[in-house]
Amino acid sequence: MADNKKRQTPITVADKKKRRRPDPNSDDDTHHPFKSLLKPDPLILQTLDDLRSATASSSSSSKTITLDELAVGSTCREVSDLDLPSVQSEIELQMLKVIKSILDGNGFAFEVPSRAAANQLYVPELDRIVLKDKTSLRPYANVSTVRKATVTARLLQLIHQLCLKNIHVTKRDLFYTDVKLFQDQTQSDSVLDDVSCMLGCTRSSLNVIASEKGVVVGRLIFSDNGDMIDCTKMGMGGKAIPPNIDRVGDMQSDALFILLVEKDAAYIRLAEDRFYNRFPCIIVTAKGQPDVATRLFLRKMKLELKLPVLALVDSDPYGLKILSVYGCGSKNMSYDSALTTPDIKWLGIRPSDLDKYKIPEQCRLTMTDQDIKTGKEMLEEDFVKKNPKWVEELTLIVKTKQKAEIQALSTFGFQYLSETYLPLKLQEQDWI
Amino acid sequence: MADNKKRQTPITVADKKKRRRPDPNSDDDTHHPFKSLLKPDPLILQTLDDLRSATASSSSSSKTITLDELAVGSTCREVSDLDLPSVQSEIELQMLKVIKSILDGNGFAFEVPSRAAANQLYVPELDRIVLKDKTSLRPYANVSTVRKATVTARLLQLIHQLCLKNIHVTKRDLFYTDVKLFQDQTQSDSVLDDVSCMLGCTRSSLNVIASEKGVVVGRLIFSDNGDMIDCTKMGMGGKAIPPNIDRVGDMQSDALFILLVEKDAAYIRLAEDRFYNRFPCIIVTAKGQPDVATRLFLRKMKLELKLPVLALVDSDPYGLKILSVYGCGSKNMSYDSALTTPDIKWLGIRPSDLDKYKIPEQCRLTMTDQDIKTGKEMLEEDFVKKNPKWVEELTLIVKTKQKAEIQALSTFGFQYLSETYLPLKLQEQDWI
Repeated sequence: MADNKKRQTPITVADKKKRRRPDPNSDDDTHHPFKSLLKPDPLILQTLDDLRSATASSSSSSKTITLDELAVGSTCREVSDLDLPSVQSEIELQMLKVIKSILDGNGFAFEVPSRAAANQLYVPELDRIVLKDKTSLRPYANVSTVRKATVTARLLQLIHQLCLKNIHVTKRDLFYTDVKLFQDQTQSDSVLDDVSCMLGCTRSSLNVIASEKGVVVGRLIFSDNGDMIDCTKMGMGGKAIPPNIDRVGDMQSDALFILLVEKDAAYIRLAEDRFYNRFPCIIVTAKGQPDVATRLFLRKMKLELKLPVLALVDSDPYGLKILSVYGCGSKNMSYDSALTTPDIKWLGIRPSDLDKYKIPEQCRLTMTDQDIKTGKEMLEEDFVKKNPKWVEELTLIVKTKQKAEIQALSTFGFQYLSETYLPLKLQEQDWI
Repeated sequence: MADNKKRQTPITVADKKKRRRPDPNSDDDTHHPFKSLLKPDPLILQTLDDLRSATASSSSSSKTITLDELAVGSTCREVSDLDLPSVQSEIELQMLKVIKSILDGNGFAFEVPSRAAANQLYVPELDRIVLKDKTSLRPYANVSTVRKATVTARLLQLIHQLCLKNIHVTKRDLFYTDVKLFQDQTQSDSVLDDVSCMLGCTRSSLNVIASEKGVVVGRLIFSDNGDMIDCTKMGMGGKAIPPNIDRVGDMQSDALFILLVEKDAAYIRLAEDRFYNRFPCIIVTAKGQPDVATRLFLRKMKLELKLPVLALVDSDPYGLKILSVYGCGSKNMSYDSALTTPDIKWLGIRPSDLDKYKIPEQCRLTMTDQDIKTGKEMLEEDFVKKNPKWVEELTLIVKTKQKAEIQALSTFGFQYLSETYLPLKLQEQDWI
């Protein structure tokens, strides 16, 4: 297809130069500030190994606490992962309850736990939010609830079908199976969340999946729907994170940590430079706002491999907000235990890095009023408050009103991120 | 983590039923209309095999025509893929031109091809748009062009660097390497497109990549940055399409066709049911609007494997618009030859399918005025006009004002798409 004239042009100058694959240890054409501070890799690897052992021991020593062991056990219910048989029998139990209520002369009615904030409780021992015992009755014989009761029954039936056939569908599929009844998707979606609370299981346990957009690359081997995937052999594109976490298993890894990256561009840089070979790690990104599939996948990695999670996000309130979504879930689904990954460390880019790493003025952006508003809101959140150093950083950014993207590091050369900034951060154990 | 009480509940009813993996040949709980019309798979495979041979022979017989062989050769320039050495020498030639212009006393100036629609020409023989010979001078010694000239020079230098280091960066990275000069990214982006036209090569040839969001699964083996990827062993998540097409190669496949899917939900259904095992194919999706990486990848598959491309999109003007983006590129980049995939067949969901497959009224959506406007605009496009059957379908949808999503098929059961609709479509060779 290429224009022949062009191909035939004598490429004398080009020929003289010999082209080479990027070499992590090669000096960049542009000068890398701070590069001189870098110690030999083995020393850096040692600090990472220490971190890993520390994380592993802490996570193994701290046995998972159940609600029953806590005072709140009696009054609270946990919404957690259930396997298909359990979901199926839960549905059958719910229907038996309904039948009993009819036989008792109380008519057809569901008992639905309230998902209102007032009915949510933050349990420090679990570092999670659980549902309190407030429930509301959803009778069929009541004009105000008859539709919702019918939708609930229909969804329970559809999900029971999914359990039997052991297949996964999207919320959109569910909606279209009975458009006449559901009318618009917001209705089937909100009742779907009711149903997951009724059954006391996460939405992903219902085999209802969200479309995935995350990718993973690096020192990880896992099975996806029965196929073994080696993420060191996924080239630059990486492996798309599967939408159905329950078909993911057999996770193995020799990585020292998980590198959680906010943005695609940084991910691409690290994947092409095969950063995970120089510093054994698993690199994962949701390409912006974390989607459910990526959050489930990250949590599973963290728990099964007992690896520390280091986060690389933009230096702005949204960077930290994204951390909080991974860490304690989004507001309206925060009771969904399967979605939260405990103990994520904030590696960078942190507001204090801007001066520390001399990010030039012109690479910093002035925060909008909205940015500042978000920053102040974040300062009020338990998730942030419980980490004084995060409060410090957030206070700094609200004060300086300056933000910066990960990409800003390119000002020191395209590979500054992978060859100097990150190695130095790891060497200095500069995570909080 | 799971609530123990729950796990211990006797799951009597559940136990009695034996759970099974989805079986393509099993009857769905819900009745599948038209299923009775399905012939045995071997017969369907035969029609697909015929289609493949037809496509293969046509693409091999039609040797690629160069512009020079056409009358327009002298007045037009093709913007096509170049390898790194050629790009590098092109840059060096451009700078030699500049030096000559200085020595001739005409000063520092670039000659930049116009990307305006007026300078684009649709060449039916190529079924593509090429640039005509209109260029504009971009002198340094002129207040109105001094900035652009400087930005152009800087970008040429940066891309020359990328060639030497053989690494890939995003537009965002480029912007941040000299924020002070570029000021905002729209400026560096637009000059970047100028540069690719100056050098007569596609933007992807410049090692400047867009973030990828597409995934591929099915009967395809290819190498991504040196790693061999077997897309039949990518589970349900599939393989993320690499952002840098020039590191993709060694494509092998025993597929009979490529199934291009507009949306993620349909992709997930087909991936989980391993549709590609029943009907050997490669399933690819960009999850909505096609991104550059997916378009490059699709084109490469089509050309190297000589496979027919069948498209499964929503039955609305945007479904066809997405087809047109794959087929002849987006308006402002339509001269970029590497982005277009010739001869895509429209399999479904087509406006005429709504009645043909008895999609219930409540699963059809009424088109908005904007939808209708878009539909009418599409009717004016060469890409649509050259296919009378497409015009027919589009005219129908503008008349009936009814649209439908792929998901609408779920109304007949979750697996209706993979078990009945698509097989029947293929059997009837119902593509246009």
